[in-house]
Amino acid sequence: MIPEATVARLPVYLRALTALADNGIRTCSSEDLATAAGVNSAKLRKDLSYLGSYGTRGVGYDVDYLRYQIAREIGVTQDWPVVIVGIGNLGHALANYSGFRSRGFRVVALLDADPALVGRTVADIAVRPFDDLDEIVREHDVAIGVIATPAHAAQDVADRMVGIGITSILNFAPAVVAVPEGVDVRKVDLSIELQILAYHEQRKANGGAEAAAAAADGVDAAGGGAA
Amino acid sequence: MIPEATVARLPVYLRALTALADNGIRTCSSEDLATAAGVNSAKLRKDLSYLGSYGTRGVGYDVDYLRYQIAREIGVTQDWPVVIVGIGNLGHALANYSGFRSRGFRVVALLDADPALVGRTVADIAVRPFDDLDEIVREHDVAIGVIATPAHAAQDVADRMVGIGITSILNFAPAVVAVPEGVDVRKVDLSIELQILAYHEQRKANGGAEAAAAAADGVDAAGGGAA
Repeated sequence: MIPEATVARLPVYLRALTALADNGIRTCSSEDLATAAGVNSAKLRKDLSYLGSYGTRGVGYDVDYLRYQIAREIGVTQDWPVVIVGIGNLGHALANYSGFRSRGFRVVALLDADPALVGRTVADIAVRPFDDLDEIVREHDVAIGVIATPAHAAQDVADRMVGIGITSILNFAPAVVAVPEGVDVRKVDLSIELQILAYHEQRKANGGAEAAAAAADGVDAAGGGAA
Repeated sequence: MIPEATVARLPVYLRALTALADNGIRTCSSEDLATAAGVNSAKLRKDLSYLGSYGTRGVGYDVDYLRYQIAREIGVTQDWPVVIVGIGNLGHALANYSGFRSRGFRVVALLDADPALVGRTVADIAVRPFDDLDEIVREHDVAIGVIATPAHAAQDVADRMVGIGITSILNFAPAVVAVPEGVDVRKVDLSIELQILAYHEQRKANGGAEAAAAAADGVDAAGGGAA
């Protein structure tokens, strides 16, 4: 069992390795990869050790092989059929998102409850009525459902997904959905990265004053104060 | 200086606390909050200690006060003017995304290079030509720019943003952008959460065999096994 925090970082390593490979880089040190992924190299080495990946002393990691190891561990070397429910702007954007396809996720159906949207073609896929969900999930053996509906519809959609046997839900709707045990839900909050930027932006704006205050506070200010 | 990994978790705690508050919960234990945020409680307590927040023994944390402390630390108690460049489906979805507004981010302008989009109203904001970027950034003192363009346009947009003094960029385009030192870029990969789900889905599919292997591995399997 790989720790959950490590699981959450594996896709980040995969993204960094893909960028390295795209730039023609064949081997990399743990420091290079750690920098590209935005973690410290001790944590990176620890994380990769769960995969039995230790690199070669003096050479580092083979980029392609490590990509394969991580992709296999995550499970994205296999093909994951995905359905997206809710084809507003966000669902539309997700249907067109190349990052899903390139990582082994195949959008097999787009569904919407709005008859005005049904039959329209988005990303070469015809939008189908939400009521077709059961049939589609059975036909394509779908295990992962994406909710991109307005908040008020999210729980109903989740219930229907769970009822038909979907066990993993990615929820983009601004609502918390309740599911039974054994079903995984991950909620995407598009503002989280923006909040991390705001944190740093605030630090830049406060500049010297902040550093002085941090030094006076003592706790954990040493790093910033000394830098 | 708060460690970067802690900074990345603060918005997650804020989201969890907001959900608790929405459910009328006034105080919570570190265990409750840790579960809601998906981290272990020792890590949560360590993270909050950087904010000088230790809770009250036997009572836990005051939900509203902790929300305020975290929001202040992140800097989202102040108002952050944001511009979004690229008003395709994703830009459109981001402009309408309520999670930005509720967290102190105010979209002051939407820009697109496509004359066919200019003048259209999205989320009550008229789309303006990309060439108005400089004027808008100066007028609203914008520090954060969001790129939602196609990949090929991302670097040009980033260059223009940096040139006019934007120091934080949130990049949704499927491209890596290079920026000078002192500018923060965060790249959003919408497939990362999906990859984390795939990891668990694969584990579920492998079922008992995997659990047995994890138990044999020992390390970090104890938590899962005992639960």
